[in-house]
Amino acid sequence: MDQPDPAALADLAASLPDGVVVTDPDLTQKYRLDRSQDDAAGTPAVVVRAEDAAQVQAAVRWAARHAVPVVPRGAGSGLSGGSSAVDGGLVLSLERMRAIEIDTESQVAVVEAGAFNAEVKQAAAEHGLWYPPDPSSYEICSIGGNIATNAGGLCCVKYGVTTDYVLGLDVVLADGTLVTLGGKRIKDVAGLPLLKLFVGSEGTLGIVTRAVLRLVPAQAPRATMVATFPNVDAAARAVVAVRRTLRPSMLELMDRASINAVEDYRPMGLDRTAGALLLAQSDAPGVSCGAEVELMRAACEAAGATELFVTDDPDEGEMFVEARRIAIPAIETTGALMLEDVGAPVPLLPDLLAAIEEVAAAYDVRIPVIAHAGDGNTHPIVVYDAGDADSEKRAREAFREVMQRAIDLGGTITGEHGVGRTKKELLPTQLGPDVMALSRRVKDALDPQGILNPGAVL
Amino acid sequence: MDQPDPAALADLAASLPDGVVVTDPDLTQKYRLDRSQDDAAGTPAVVVRAEDAAQVQAAVRWAARHAVPVVPRGAGSGLSGGSSAVDGGLVLSLERMRAIEIDTESQVAVVEAGAFNAEVKQAAAEHGLWYPPDPSSYEICSIGGNIATNAGGLCCVKYGVTTDYVLGLDVVLADGTLVTLGGKRIKDVAGLPLLKLFVGSEGTLGIVTRAVLRLVPAQAPRATMVATFPNVDAAARAVVAVRRTLRPSMLELMDRASINAVEDYRPMGLDRTAGALLLAQSDAPGVSCGAEVELMRAACEAAGATELFVTDDPDEGEMFVEARRIAIPAIETTGALMLEDVGAPVPLLPDLLAAIEEVAAAYDVRIPVIAHAGDGNTHPIVVYDAGDADSEKRAREAFREVMQRAIDLGGTITGEHGVGRTKKELLPTQLGPDVMALSRRVKDALDPQGILNPGAVL
Repeated sequence: MDQPDPAALADLAASLPDGVVVTDPDLTQKYRLDRSQDDAAGTPAVVVRAEDAAQVQAAVRWAARHAVPVVPRGAGSGLSGGSSAVDGGLVLSLERMRAIEIDTESQVAVVEAGAFNAEVKQAAAEHGLWYPPDPSSYEICSIGGNIATNAGGLCCVKYGVTTDYVLGLDVVLADGTLVTLGGKRIKDVAGLPLLKLFVGSEGTLGIVTRAVLRLVPAQAPRATMVATFPNVDAAARAVVAVRRTLRPSMLELMDRASINAVEDYRPMGLDRTAGALLLAQSDAPGVSCGAEVELMRAACEAAGATELFVTDDPDEGEMFVEARRIAIPAIETTGALMLEDVGAPVPLLPDLLAAIEEVAAAYDVRIPVIAHAGDGNTHPIVVYDAGDADSEKRAREAFREVMQRAIDLGGTITGEHGVGRTKKELLPTQLGPDVMALSRRVKDALDPQGILNPGAVL
Repeated sequence: MDQPDPAALADLAASLPDGVVVTDPDLTQKYRLDRSQDDAAGTPAVVVRAEDAAQVQAAVRWAARHAVPVVPRGAGSGLSGGSSAVDGGLVLSLERMRAIEIDTESQVAVVEAGAFNAEVKQAAAEHGLWYPPDPSSYEICSIGGNIATNAGGLCCVKYGVTTDYVLGLDVVLADGTLVTLGGKRIKDVAGLPLLKLFVGSEGTLGIVTRAVLRLVPAQAPRATMVATFPNVDAAARAVVAVRRTLRPSMLELMDRASINAVEDYRPMGLDRTAGALLLAQSDAPGVSCGAEVELMRAACEAAGATELFVTDDPDEGEMFVEARRIAIPAIETTGALMLEDVGAPVPLLPDLLAAIEEVAAAYDVRIPVIAHAGDGNTHPIVVYDAGDADSEKRAREAFREVMQRAIDLGGTITGEHGVGRTKKELLPTQLGPDVMALSRRVKDALDPQGILNPGAVL
């Protein structure tokens, strides 16, 4: 990619307030990578740290005029390289747009794209309200990034994913036009459903600057169940049994390797000898450790659970959830990572987990697994030695093979992280030529110059 | 619109099995109108009653070749003229495609587009599962139509609308290509979110032939509350108060005119003297007439309810729900109808209802109101005398003015029925030129010839 003309860069800097436009390589360097640490990332020519939608529009108009690629960026916590920089491109950072307004009467949050998920949750909680979507990274990820990937999380097994909570969006299109879609209306079917087209489009169709998010009444107190199993297969079969009749508010799985990584990183009292652990919660109001948890306990026993622990103490429950949430950082301390996000229909969860074990053996790599098991969505984490070319090669092949095996099972290469740049190669295999062609038509209609996040997804 | 060439029609008939292609005017006449009885509807040249997706593809390919407009049609229960026929066009009826398969392990229903909503509910219930979306017309509307309009219903105040339950779609595109989007995976973000683009697109972007619908465990027993109020405003204020802290599973409003229409049509024991009635249900498990209903009762009392009745008897509760559901047929017996579907953010519900009363007075027309009040979605029903030109003119003006007043309040011209043909005129006023232009770009990208449901929505 060519570098933008220096005169054009000077024009951009002059058109925006001091400090918004950054070209100092020491600073722009920090905007190269997201959390996927994709080594194919380029070096941006310029970073715009927009303070409002009008500045986003100005930057996009400039980029359109000069045919400069634009990579939108929230908190940089993406796991698929969706905000990896492009050589000579413009990184459009939303990090400064963090305003949050809670409308208690309408039960919505009006949120700028750079606000963190945890900040929205906190602001809602101050009014007795709740924003459910909860990626494990909720303390460090932005709402804009959540919308870009249609992020999931732990409670979405019962409460759905990001798109289910998006009522309205302000979006800057590829020509700099700002459109407002939807709003504070709970139901609105006026016109084509364009709103939903932007949720999960990974910045390839437009740049979200603001969102109206649906809030719900605060979650009821949760009862927590922890069950250990001799192996992953037994735990997976318990998940299938639970999901056949129940709708827990959390149903997570950790395998032995991830349990031990967590215990090494921060001792939480997990059973290091367990083959797998299920962490489930029920928030069915008023029942506490009642009916739903008892049914889950019975399903786990029938599937061969070796130990079962139930509590309705919120702090005790949160400690186990925290153990689950720190799994990725914990595994990160054991090597370089390639994070998977493959999924399958829930009944095929045992097959998917078995396939992952086979791939680990075939390529001689470690692949600890954590999973939003109740959704059939797994995070196999391929660990490799960053300094060892052979290790990295085997990891890369295993990463690819895990996606292929998910596709073979009728699954998906990504349940919630997005395709970004690191999973793009297998997308045509999953979707097939007709859906790829349809995607391309939509992309071309909305971004005919192809300046929005080029190289991501398609 | 020109008529298709007779030789072309003969080709179409020859290419499909006997009885699929219908050109007999006595028969095609029955496919002119949907339930909106839009008198601007045209007369189709041909009706294709497809038996499978391949026949839909064949018909669309034929239409593309001969530039014949295609109006997709489910059960013909639409309320906005979305399946009104076009002169010289092809009506593509899905009425014969009714197969339903329940996958209990994945908790999904795989459903052909012509299956009725009630049939899907029934098939799911046989396995202890539940398909929540419940338009009042659920016994006579098709899943394909529900998907086309992103239909709502009574329980969506807690359980969401159709799009929240669509996991997968088979869609025939404007060139006859069949694409499969999504599937039995609960979470899947691989590629652009095209699936959601078709839910609510009213047959203008493609023709849905099959859907994978998410099912949930059977609903818990419901407690029912009926509250009467001296006037609509007091009832609306009670709704706002309830929604500030609670998430009931139903929150419906009827005004005095609709109460009396129901009592005239089928006496149900409703209080004819009430200014308005709220019908609420709670399905918070295990609480029966417990906490949630008690809180609703308190909110209604504070807002000035004159009578309050609470029951946890399911049959008694269902009787009130039935009274609400038959309101439209009941009002239909009192004159010709123009059905509104305007909505507003919930806190503005009192203002929207007041505006509707003002419009009724200004244009000297009767506008009974029923409302999915908990969603801010109202159905003012403009009643007129079909034989009286002046009455019809005033009704038409009032119909338009109600939409305009909703827009003025930051509301929508349609919450769940769709724009179709009868609400199209005001769509640009609601969306503005930029969103209209964006809509047109998407439409042109997917249907460059403009053969899919021309005249609807855009």
